[in-house]
Amino acid sequence: MAQKPSIPKGTRDFSPVEMTNRNYIFDTIKGVFRLYGFQPIETPAMENLSTLMGKYGEEGDKLLFKILNSGDFAAAPSEQELLERNSIRLTNKISEKGLRYDLTVPFARYVVQYRNDISFPFKRYQIQPVWRADRPQKGRYREFYQCDVDIVGSDSLLNEMELVQIVDAVFTKLKINTVVKINNRKILAGIAEVIGEKDRIVDITVAIDKLDKIGLEKVNEELLEKGIPQAAVDKLQPILHLSGSVSEKLAQLETAIGQSESGAKGIAEVRTLFAYLEPFNLNTEVELDLTLARGLNYYTGAIFEVKAKDVAMGSICGGGRYDDLTGIFGMPGVSGVGISFGADRIYDVLTQLQLFPAATVDSTKLLFVNLGVAEEAFCLSILAAIRQSGINAEIFPDQSKMKKQMTWANNKNIPFVAIVGEEELAQGKINLKNMLSGDQQLVDAQELIKVLSE
Amino acid sequence: MAQKPSIPKGTRDFSPVEMTNRNYIFDTIKGVFRLYGFQPIETPAMENLSTLMGKYGEEGDKLLFKILNSGDFAAAPSEQELLERNSIRLTNKISEKGLRYDLTVPFARYVVQYRNDISFPFKRYQIQPVWRADRPQKGRYREFYQCDVDIVGSDSLLNEMELVQIVDAVFTKLKINTVVKINNRKILAGIAEVIGEKDRIVDITVAIDKLDKIGLEKVNEELLEKGIPQAAVDKLQPILHLSGSVSEKLAQLETAIGQSESGAKGIAEVRTLFAYLEPFNLNTEVELDLTLARGLNYYTGAIFEVKAKDVAMGSICGGGRYDDLTGIFGMPGVSGVGISFGADRIYDVLTQLQLFPAATVDSTKLLFVNLGVAEEAFCLSILAAIRQSGINAEIFPDQSKMKKQMTWANNKNIPFVAIVGEEELAQGKINLKNMLSGDQQLVDAQELIKVLSE
Repeated sequence: MAQKPSIPKGTRDFSPVEMTNRNYIFDTIKGVFRLYGFQPIETPAMENLSTLMGKYGEEGDKLLFKILNSGDFAAAPSEQELLERNSIRLTNKISEKGLRYDLTVPFARYVVQYRNDISFPFKRYQIQPVWRADRPQKGRYREFYQCDVDIVGSDSLLNEMELVQIVDAVFTKLKINTVVKINNRKILAGIAEVIGEKDRIVDITVAIDKLDKIGLEKVNEELLEKGIPQAAVDKLQPILHLSGSVSEKLAQLETAIGQSESGAKGIAEVRTLFAYLEPFNLNTEVELDLTLARGLNYYTGAIFEVKAKDVAMGSICGGGRYDDLTGIFGMPGVSGVGISFGADRIYDVLTQLQLFPAATVDSTKLLFVNLGVAEEAFCLSILAAIRQSGINAEIFPDQSKMKKQMTWANNKNIPFVAIVGEEELAQGKINLKNMLSGDQQLVDAQELIKVLSE
Repeated sequence: MAQKPSIPKGTRDFSPVEMTNRNYIFDTIKGVFRLYGFQPIETPAMENLSTLMGKYGEEGDKLLFKILNSGDFAAAPSEQELLERNSIRLTNKISEKGLRYDLTVPFARYVVQYRNDISFPFKRYQIQPVWRADRPQKGRYREFYQCDVDIVGSDSLLNEMELVQIVDAVFTKLKINTVVKINNRKILAGIAEVIGEKDRIVDITVAIDKLDKIGLEKVNEELLEKGIPQAAVDKLQPILHLSGSVSEKLAQLETAIGQSESGAKGIAEVRTLFAYLEPFNLNTEVELDLTLARGLNYYTGAIFEVKAKDVAMGSICGGGRYDDLTGIFGMPGVSGVGISFGADRIYDVLTQLQLFPAATVDSTKLLFVNLGVAEEAFCLSILAAIRQSGINAEIFPDQSKMKKQMTWANNKNIPFVAIVGEEELAQGKINLKNMLSGDQQLVDAQELIKVLSE
């Protein structure tokens, strides 16, 4: 096998440096989730295709990775089915499992399957890879991690509030300046209802979204082009002119769509959420943004989107409330709300802004170079004491040339190197080199541990 | 969809309690790996079938989960190939990716693929799930985590020593009493060579393994039955009678097989490893065990196996040295040594011995019950301060009945509950209940944080 080995397109290996950075992100997020009382679950990579199919639309069904049945799968289809070469129909005969496409459907399946064991409201987080047979392109992978946090079985807007607090806490810890945009599907439904176009929520929201870019006149033109009647477009005008603070905007909205039951409910929800957030000094900006059209197919209340302020990048986190997550599995009426952190985009933001810490829990703090048998034995006893005090440290396993060992330490970004040659050994001391400053000092074991603990 | 949803056989969901326990194991292991300077990598779940096939024997090829090519896969095979219904040949036409079967082959592929970027010796750990289409049975799953740690590119026996130290550190932290059994393939090869049966290493080792169970006479009978000549069995007798300490056994071995180059080398390696370990006060017992026949197909030097002493269970950890990991991918001569922790078995040991900690980083320490709007607002401000000091805490999101909220806290194993009703609110105090003892005390916010921090 002379060919250089490779991995499937759209997948990635993660090197130690990349893993260290990724773990920094995941550990930060998990730490905050725990602080808020969320607990982890995991589901299998493979789900029955009956669980996955039909949940992501026709296009989604195609993007599922399907697993060939084990054993003699070719015996199952009839001769006609084989010769028909209809890949979709044939799949049903030779595959009954697929790789999970997201964490939402497996979570819904989990909730229904263990409904009798779960104490609701159920607060869970889940950080696992998902797979999609999308065409690979820059920033889009066939295997990537999702990082979801949800509460199901509670209608309280306190949950929405805590999710915003979680977003704030995560990005404060990661030192990313963010803005959280909040919308509410009930308000959008109220708008569509009031202007007499109940079924056109998406078109209307998408048009409003372009207000900043193309201006009022063009937006109105687009609405008409899309078949929204002139009378409805006229009625929409006050909403396109909302201005002022959140409470001022809400007051204007109240006038415009307060007569719609759904609209009034949406306004009340947003008002409550902002009132909940008021006493807390969040670092993140929180905005009411009626143009937010994310996930209008499934969100039924609050809609969230988070953007980084100092880089041009899509949303790095998003979510919302859904009123019927588990209905697809025969358990209706369970409301939930959740958000999902985009680990890959957050990684890119931290890279661009150079915000990854130089050292994390994964890093080695000290390397002992290995210069001879007696020296090694001396180093090993001190090394044991260093590890005993919880400091990551190692010794070069071979008695290679000094230069090779120093280069190795450098490549591994190890900040301190301990050198024990004949002279140091005779004195029972260690020559400690700071790899960043180049400073060297002669220390004993106790002093060494003290320096490393600083 | 009225049918209760389920997951594929042989796979598992992990509930919050199970995840908390599993994370306790993984976090402990990772912490020790880092302490010894090992760094994480991850590889994709899917590998090209060309990477995986032929690496695990014919049986292994069958146990690989294969992924159906996306799109119109049914167009690829010829009519004859379809009608032949040869599942193995058809697989080549409609599948080019498979799920990883272990972490060793992907690691070898990784080392070869990035050989120019890696600074050898390369010390990596990898904790990821693997998939095998084995027939599911008790304790055998189709998806399970492996937890591997390896050093490649160094021949030094210091590495073997550090792996034994890692085993000792992990199981000391987990409070499991263990014995590490050590063997060396070169010694086994030397034995086979000296008795003139070079190719019968496995048969000989397996027979020796039964010495304790069936006695010397039966072992000799079995060897003869297996076609080992009487003369060879006679020569084997001194080795079957090894006794005393490790150094005494090594001395007897030296007499018996020292004339074999391989045997002498194996004896020297074991001697060095035990000498390395001597100065350290390990909690684990370390034994020389010539009957250890694990992985004789690929290990070329040291062989390790770890057993828990207080439960009847197979090995919970094992490994060894291999001299040609990357040869299969065209990069010969890279020696490595590694061990793998069996997370599922360790889980079972900790369960049987009731050694899982009551609380971990994943656990919530305090729940505020939610008794009314004003009470909630008061609780939320204190809750923010508690989280600020790094304590996992939460508030029940709905103003449900007291009993429901207390049951919920109980189900979630939350040790403290904070009750703020009208009276407490009037006094600006919190009624803090210890859920284990039932004790209640009236405290202010500062006192509350103090109690929780203890």
